[in-house]
Amino acid sequence: MSVTAARGFRAAGVAAGLKSTGERDVALVVNDGPDDVAAAVFTTNRVFAAPVAWSRQAVADGRASAVVLNSGGANACTGPEGFADTHRTAEHTADALGVSAGDTLVCSTGLIGTRLPMTELLAGVDDASGRLSDDGGEDAARAIMTTDTVPKTVVVTVRSEDHPDDEGWTVGGMAKGAGMLAPGLATMLCVLTTDARVDAATADAALRAATAATFDRVDSDGCMSTNDTVVLLASGASGTTVDVDALTDALTEACASLARQLVADAEGASHDIAVRVVGATTVDAAVAVARSVTRSNLFKAAVFGNDPNWGRVLSAVGTVPESVAPFDAARLDVSVNGVQVCRAGGVGDDRDLVDLAASREVHVLVDLHAGDAEATVWTNDLTHDYVHENSAYSS
Amino acid sequence: MSVTAARGFRAAGVAAGLKSTGERDVALVVNDGPDDVAAAVFTTNRVFAAPVAWSRQAVADGRASAVVLNSGGANACTGPEGFADTHRTAEHTADALGVSAGDTLVCSTGLIGTRLPMTELLAGVDDASGRLSDDGGEDAARAIMTTDTVPKTVVVTVRSEDHPDDEGWTVGGMAKGAGMLAPGLATMLCVLTTDARVDAATADAALRAATAATFDRVDSDGCMSTNDTVVLLASGASGTTVDVDALTDALTEACASLARQLVADAEGASHDIAVRVVGATTVDAAVAVARSVTRSNLFKAAVFGNDPNWGRVLSAVGTVPESVAPFDAARLDVSVNGVQVCRAGGVGDDRDLVDLAASREVHVLVDLHAGDAEATVWTNDLTHDYVHENSAYSS
Repeated sequence: MSVTAARGFRAAGVAAGLKSTGERDVALVVNDGPDDVAAAVFTTNRVFAAPVAWSRQAVADGRASAVVLNSGGANACTGPEGFADTHRTAEHTADALGVSAGDTLVCSTGLIGTRLPMTELLAGVDDASGRLSDDGGEDAARAIMTTDTVPKTVVVTVRSEDHPDDEGWTVGGMAKGAGMLAPGLATMLCVLTTDARVDAATADAALRAATAATFDRVDSDGCMSTNDTVVLLASGASGTTVDVDALTDALTEACASLARQLVADAEGASHDIAVRVVGATTVDAAVAVARSVTRSNLFKAAVFGNDPNWGRVLSAVGTVPESVAPFDAARLDVSVNGVQVCRAGGVGDDRDLVDLAASREVHVLVDLHAGDAEATVWTNDLTHDYVHENSAYSS
Repeated sequence: MSVTAARGFRAAGVAAGLKSTGERDVALVVNDGPDDVAAAVFTTNRVFAAPVAWSRQAVADGRASAVVLNSGGANACTGPEGFADTHRTAEHTADALGVSAGDTLVCSTGLIGTRLPMTELLAGVDDASGRLSDDGGEDAARAIMTTDTVPKTVVVTVRSEDHPDDEGWTVGGMAKGAGMLAPGLATMLCVLTTDARVDAATADAALRAATAATFDRVDSDGCMSTNDTVVLLASGASGTTVDVDALTDALTEACASLARQLVADAEGASHDIAVRVVGATTVDAAVAVARSVTRSNLFKAAVFGNDPNWGRVLSAVGTVPESVAPFDAARLDVSVNGVQVCRAGGVGDDRDLVDLAASREVHVLVDLHAGDAEATVWTNDLTHDYVHENSAYSS
C-alpha cells in the first residue's frame, strides 16, 4: 500500500519514457486532506539539484498538497534552465491537480548534468494525474526506482491500547536509492504519508528526529547525493491528533524499515554490515567511530572476501580524533558475528571461528570502554559488482 | 643508490624468512656520521604499532644512529608482548652495530595482529649487519616492499651555483607502501638520508614541511595505517651546512618523487588521478576540496570506467562545509585532462572529448573562483583489482 496506506492520499506511477527501459518513471502523491501539513529534509550537499532548491522553498511554510517525482534524470548541475524545468513541472502538476504550484513539491533522481525531457515528463504528469487512486502506492514506489532491484515500501499502523478496535492512525512510505547512501542522506528519495492530525512544527520536529536516527546512519559508500529528499505529508484524515513523541516513534519505525531495505538492495553489495559501537562517552562519539569503520574501503573489501579483519576495524577506529571520541586504544574490544576477535587492543579469539560466507549480515561490535553511549551505522561491503556498476554506467 | 647515495651511510637488505616468498624482508640503514641528527614523522592513528611507539620515543632527542626495518609483519595490535619484541629488536640491532638501543629506530610493515617471528628476525638483523655497505641502498629498498611491485628510491643532489665543481650535498631516500596511502601518511615506510650538516630543529622543521606538502597529499584509498613512519637521518659528511629552506626544498623534491612513485604503484590501480583545486580562499580550503574528490568512491570508479564524470566531482566538492571552503556552487568550473566539462556549475564542453582510456594520468582541475590559493591531491581509481587484492589477502 505504500504511501496510500494512510487515509487521505492518492498516488500513481506511470511510464513516460524518461527511462530507456520503458519502465515507470513518473510518480504523483496527492494529499486530499482535510489537512495539508508537510515537512521535509534535504541533502546538505552545497551542490544541490534544481528540485531541491524548489522544494526547500515550497515546503518552508509547512504546507504541501502534492509531490511529483521522476526517475531517469536528476536535474542537477543544469543551471537556471534546470530550475525553470522544475518550476514548469510544479506548475503543470498543480494545474492538473487543481492545487497551488507553491504547494507542489518536486523530486528527481538519475543522471547528473543533463536536462530532463520536458515533453515526455509533462505528458507523464498528465497521465499520472488521470490514474491517481487510493491503491496507487505500489506503482508510485516502482516509478522512483533507479538501480534499485525492488521497490521499498512500509506501513506502520498505531492503535490505542485503550481502544484496540479503533482504526488508529497510519504512517505509509516509499523510498528509492541504492547507490549514494551517505550521512545527511544520499541519492535517496522518500515520501512518507500519515493520516494523523499534527501541526507543521510537530511534523518537522518528528521527521528530523526520525531521519537522524535512521537514514543518517546508513552509509553505503560515503558519497552524498545532490538530490536527497525525505518528504512527510499529513492529511489528518484519521481524526486522531498525535503528539511529537508518538509521531517520532512511528516515523522512526517506518524510516528504519526503509533504511534497512535500502542497505539490503545497495548497488553490488554481497553483505550488509552493522557497525555497533558501545561504551562511548556520547552518541555522537559512537556515531563518529562507527562511521569511520563503515567508510574504510579496506575493511569493506575484507568483508567481501569473508575476512573478519579486525586489524582494519581498529585502524579505522584509531583515525577518530581524541576530541571527538575519547578512548584508550589498549582497551578496545571487537567482536564479529559474536566472536571476540580482538581483546584489549590485541589478538582475541580465533578469527577462523567467524564464517562470513554463511551470512549476508555482518555484525561488528566495537566496545570503547569509555562510557555508556552507543550507536549503530549500517553499510555494505565493497565488491566487484559495486565497482562494475559504478564504472560501467554513468549516474 | 637510494639511502646510500648520501655520504656517511651504509645499508643492507636480506631475506630472513619473514616473507613466505623467500624475498628480502629485513633492512638496515646505518648513519656513520660524523653527525647523528635525526627527525621523524609518524602516523596520527591512535591505534599505532609497537615500532611507532618505540621510535617516537627514540627519536625525541633528535638523534639516531640506525634504522632497522622489516616487512612480513606490522607488529600492530600485538599488546605488551609486541612492544617487547620491538624493544628486543632495537637492542639486538644496537649490539650488532655497537650503537645505543635508544638511538636505534624500528619500522615494521605487513599483517596487523600477529606477532613477529623473532628468531628469524634477529638472525636477519645479524645477517644484514654483516652485509652493510655503501651501495646497499637498493637491497634495503627491496627488503621493505610488501604489495609493491617495484622498489621506490630517489636521489637529489644540490650543488652551489657559485661552485659547480663542488660535490655539493645529497638527499637519498627509499619508500614502500602501495595500499593504505592516506592523509597523515599511510602504510608507508620511508627513510631519507642526507650528508648535509643540519641541527635537529632544522631537520625536524624541514621534514614536517616536506611531508605535509607531499606524502600528506597522496590519498590512495582514504585509509590511515597503524605503522606509517618517515625517518630522516643526517650525517653531516658533506661538510656543507644547510639552512631550513634549502633542506626543505631538497626533501620536498625527494618526497614528491617518492610519493609519485607510490601512487604509480598503488594496489590494483589503472589510473593515477591528480585533483588540482585552484581559486580557493586558502591552501587548507583547496586541500579539503581536493581531498573530498579523491575520497569519492563513485568518482574513482567512474575513472576506472574511463568516464570523466564531472557530476560526481561536483557532488563531492559540495560536501565540503562552507566554513572550511567558501565558494559559490553556481560558479564552479571543472576540467578533465584539459577539457572543460563543467562550466559555472552546469554542463560544459562535450565529455566525449576526454579520452581517459588513452592515459594513465588523469588531471582534474576544479576552479572555485573564490580566491588565489591552490593545492593538488593525488589518488588512484577504484578498480576490480583493488577489491580483489584487498579481499583475497589479509593485511
